[in-house]
Parts: sequence; C-alpha cells; structure tokens
Amino acid sequence: MGEFELIVRYFKRPTRHAVLGIGDDCALLQPTPGCQMAISSDMLVEGRHFFADVDPFALGHKALAVNLSDLAACGARPLAFTLALALPKADAAWLEPFSRGLLSLADAHDCELVGGDTTKGPLNICITVFGEVPVVNGRSQALLRSGAKVGDDIYVSGTLGDARLALEGLRGQLALPQGLLARARQRLETPTPRIALGMALRGIATAAIDVSDGLLGDLGHVLEASNVGACIDTTIAIGLMACDADDLEAATTPAARLACILAGGDDYELAFTASPDVRDAVQNAAAASSTRVTRIGQIQTETGLRLVDAQGAPITNLYRSFDHFA
Amino acid sequence: MGEFELIVRYFKRPTRHAVLGIGDDCALLQPTPGCQMAISSDMLVEGRHFFADVDPFALGHKALAVNLSDLAACGARPLAFTLALALPKADAAWLEPFSRGLLSLADAHDCELVGGDTTKGPLNICITVFGEVPVVNGRSQALLRSGAKVGDDIYVSGTLGDARLALEGLRGQLALPQGLLARARQRLETPTPRIALGMALRGIATAAIDVSDGLLGDLGHVLEASNVGACIDTTIAIGLMACDADDLEAATTPAARLACILAGGDDYELAFTASPDVRDAVQNAAAASSTRVTRIGQIQTETGLRLVDAQGAPITNLYRSFDHFA
Repeated sequence: MGEFELIVRYFKRPTRHAVLGIGDDCALLQPTPGCQMAISSDMLVEGRHFFADVDPFALGHKALAVNLSDLAACGARPLAFTLALALPKADAAWLEPFSRGLLSLADAHDCELVGGDTTKGPLNICITVFGEVPVVNGRSQALLRSGAKVGDDIYVSGTLGDARLALEGLRGQLALPQGLLARARQRLETPTPRIALGMALRGIATAAIDVSDGLLGDLGHVLEASNVGACIDTTIAIGLMACDADDLEAATTPAARLACILAGGDDYELAFTASPDVRDAVQNAAAASSTRVTRIGQIQTETGLRLVDAQGAPITNLYRSFDHFA
Repeated sequence: MGEFELIVRYFKRPTRHAVLGIGDDCALLQPTPGCQMAISSDMLVEGRHFFADVDPFALGHKALAVNLSDLAACGARPLAFTLALALPKADAAWLEPFSRGLLSLADAHDCELVGGDTTKGPLNICITVFGEVPVVNGRSQALLRSGAKVGDDIYVSGTLGDARLALEGLRGQLALPQGLLARARQRLETPTPRIALGMALRGIATAAIDVSDGLLGDLGHVLEASNVGACIDTTIAIGLMACDADDLEAATTPAARLACILAGGDDYELAFTASPDVRDAVQNAAAASSTRVTRIGQIQTETGLRLVDAQGAPITNLYRSFDHFA
C-alpha cells in the first residue's frame, strides 16, 4: 500500500463544508462572516502520550479529542482538522481502526478532515484543529485564560483524576482491581471533549482552560494570565472522580485520589470561572450541554493557589503538574 | 529548561496580525472579509526528510519553507502557522539556531507563529500553515491542480534537480567535487518557497502544484486531477539545474542529471499550466516576482505523461516519484 492509496482508503471522504478537502496542495475553508478562526495543534508520541499496545480505535479518538478539547476551552464550534501522521509501516490492521476512531469522533462534532501529511517514521500523530467563534458587537466571544476576576466562582466540568488512576494502574504503581482499572482506563483512553459546554459558556464564563496537564497546573495558567489567585476546596475536589466511590476507597488512599484529581492530567475537562451572579446561567449551560459542572473554589486577590480542607484551613500543596521537559 | 520556558525563550514573540497568539488554548485569527483560508500541513522526520546532523538553522528554514511552498502552489498569501515539535531533549544549542532559521523565513513572508505544541520524543517537526486567497466575483482565486486545459503551456519556476544531486552526493551514491556539492546542498537544505510567484499567477495560471516529490510525479497529480495528458521536452528540462553547467557535466552523466531534474524531489518549485494566450502575462508575473520560469511542455488530450527529445521523438520514461510507503 503506497502513500496515496493509504490516504484514499482510510482518510479521504467527500467534503461537506470545506470548499476543498484532501487532495490538493492546500485545503480551502470559507470563514463565516463575523467569526474568528480558533486554531490549536497537539502532537501525540508513542511511549509518551500513549502505550505502544493501545487500542488503535481509542487512539484515533483520543488524538482528535485532545484537540477538540482546546476548541471547547475557547468556546469555539469545530469546523475542520488536518492530520499529520508518521507511521513505522502502512499497516491496515492498525490504520483501519485508528481511522474509524478518529473519524467517528470527527463526525460526532461535524468536524471535517481536510488535509495533512503521511510519512514513514516513529509513530507520531499531529492534529491541527480549526473552529469558529462569533464576534458580537465588536467583541470576540472566545473564552480566554485571562478573564478571571476576583470573587469569581471556579468550576470544573465532568470528572477528574480517573485517567491518572488508570495510568498508575497500568504502570504498576497502584494495584487496582480489574473492574476499577477497566473503568478508569476508559477515561484515560477515550476522553470526552466538552464542546457543547464550551459553546454554552460563551458570554457567561469569564475565563476557561482545558485540564490536560493537571487541574492545579492548568488553573495556575488562568491565575497567571488573569493576575489573580484562587482557593480550592479539597473536600469538594475529593468527590470528583468518575469511578465508584466504594471501589475507589477500597483500592486507594484519600491522598492518592486527591493527587490524581488535582495533578493527574489527561482529563480533558474544562476548568472555568464565572461571576457568582450567573450561577443559574452556568447551571443552565451545564444542563443544556448534558454536562455536570462542580463549583470547587473562588478567585481571590492574593496571587497563588491555596488548598483548604473542610474547615477552610489551608493544607500544603505538594502537587505539580506535568511538564514534558522538567 | 521546562516546556513553557522553552516556548517563551525561543518561540514566543509579540503578536502582530493575529487576534491572539501563543499562550492560550487556541490562537485566534480574524479572517479578511471576502477571502478563503488556505491550509496545509507537513511533517518532517529525522532520517527521512533530513540527516541527523543537519544545520539546525537550515532545518528551521526548511520546515517552514516546505509548508509555505504549498501556499505558493495555491496562490495564497501567508498569514500564520503553528509548530508542533517533538524533541529528544530541550537543547539550547539546537533550539536557538532552529528557531532563528524558522522565524527569519517567517518574518520574510510576514507569517506569524501563533501556537503549537512541544513534547519529548524522536525529533519530529510538524507545521501547519494558514494563508488567504481572495474570492473575486464569487470565484475563488486559488490555484488548483484540477484546472489544466488541453493546449496549455507547462512551466516550472526556478531550478530543478540540485536538491536530489546533493542528496546523492551526501549519501555517497555520486562522487561530487566539494564546491559542486556545497552549492547543490544549499538547494536541498534551504529551498525558496515561491510565494510571490504563486500570488502573481492568480487569474493567469490554470493549474499549479509545488514540486516536492519529483516533477513527473507531481505533474502527474495535475494531469490526473485535470483529466488530461502532457508532453515534456527533455532538451529544455536538462538545462534546469542551478549548479554550473561545466561543473555538472564534468561530474555527472546527462542521464543522472535528467533523473535528478525529472524525478529528484525536494525542489519546492512551482509547476503550473497557462494558456498560450497569456504568455506575456506569465512572463510579467515572473518578472514581478523576480522568479525565473521556463516553459517545458504542453498539456495534451491523450492522458499520461510523455517525454520527447530534441527531435520531438518519444523517449522511455523510467522515472518514478517519491512515495513514503512504496
């Protein structure tokens, strides 16, 4: 199977929205008048972002999901993406499920594959995704990291920490029962990008980010960009995992769970801030997008991020978020 | 040096045209009303697209040049790009010249780095580039592969074959004098994307492609997309190399030179077609963009690509273009 046959067989489909899709020097998109184009790019490397033996269907899903999650954090509507793929060999048994996983998530978000590149090399998946955000009365509706205000509530979507729990189980760092590991692994391998929630939070949230490297580290970017501080209630945070509480309590310590939740990474949930005046609007946005949101803290004047216990007493923050080169 | 310090030190600069550049979940671009967005993505892998010991400045240049070349083939004006980079380690001695090579070419084309990703992994450079093409009277000005018409002239820009000559020299397949190898190597390592020519050919050329895998193979894509055939005059083609003719004749056979020119690859020139009625306009576009163009053949009804000699007699085509998986 040659390069062009590979593209045609697994990745090329009739274009729907794009002016021009796969097959020329460039893809062509016609931007919607009055919208800005939101762009994000993520690269996934074998042994770093996924295990060599990961299910290729799940990998196809995740490769796009982590990019869509960036659009979600921005409140953008997905339009299209490019895929650059380095493969050790053109293996149909891998390419077929990989492309199915990728394109089924793409279809679910009406996000079209419009171009890219294929080459031989150590397995590497680089996706660049394009979305649109409206500009209303001269004001971009994009959610940025820089808009958090003192007094704002801090929320997270969905659940946190299960992906890291699975990683620790798969690495043999934690002994987990099969059932618990299997459920946690679903969160690690097939995260859900919160596109509908991000779009519903336009004009409501003051700032947003997607949780990819760990909640505290990612929230730290919001605090830095907004020049504010925050306080997080660990007694609420400890309840944020998706897996069954009894199973979790039997297999893990509270400290291990809190570490997974606060600094685990690979969650692809949204952390966002909003004024206490719009709590109803936040809950409506959550309901409209069928996504649970949990209020976990508050933006404060004093810079830095503080953790408190049930009594509001500060607890030491020992958590670090993920850095590829640290 | 951590991931964020690396980005700030080598890649982040004040945004110029983008609404939002590096540092949030997405970059934001404000499309020009009445324009289409042209998008292309290329991935460069060590050992496949470049040698491990290549000058990092040249590599930075080339990584962007091959992407800009796709915009050129489309007639698009460059706007911005994203860079996803997998690195074995955060090495300042490599990153500093790499980013200089990359950003100096970006500056030369007013093409802004707006986002991307960095991760640890086998060296891999994935760039996605964005440009704009105007729509005039409801008609996109983008140059496509599919517009070649029977009777059109076939042109190539600049020079062809020197990059492949250098590759053969560096691989030890051809014994080349130092001076010749050094000059040919410049073409291999720092190709010139033909942006100005591509833009000048809007409304003049009927079809265009950039020559990356070898002239015959790339022109073959134009013929296939346009459902036509072509005839190429090898006596003109043989004169297309950049290196000094005497040096070339002393070191190589005509057959070796023709193989480099017709099927060498890595040229990043434009191959394009235009009606004989607009020969003056083509020459004016070439002059306005300070780019030599050479008429090398003609589009014909009979499909397939034919090579002819000085007498117009057909010669056997033994050349194949590059395929990463063939």
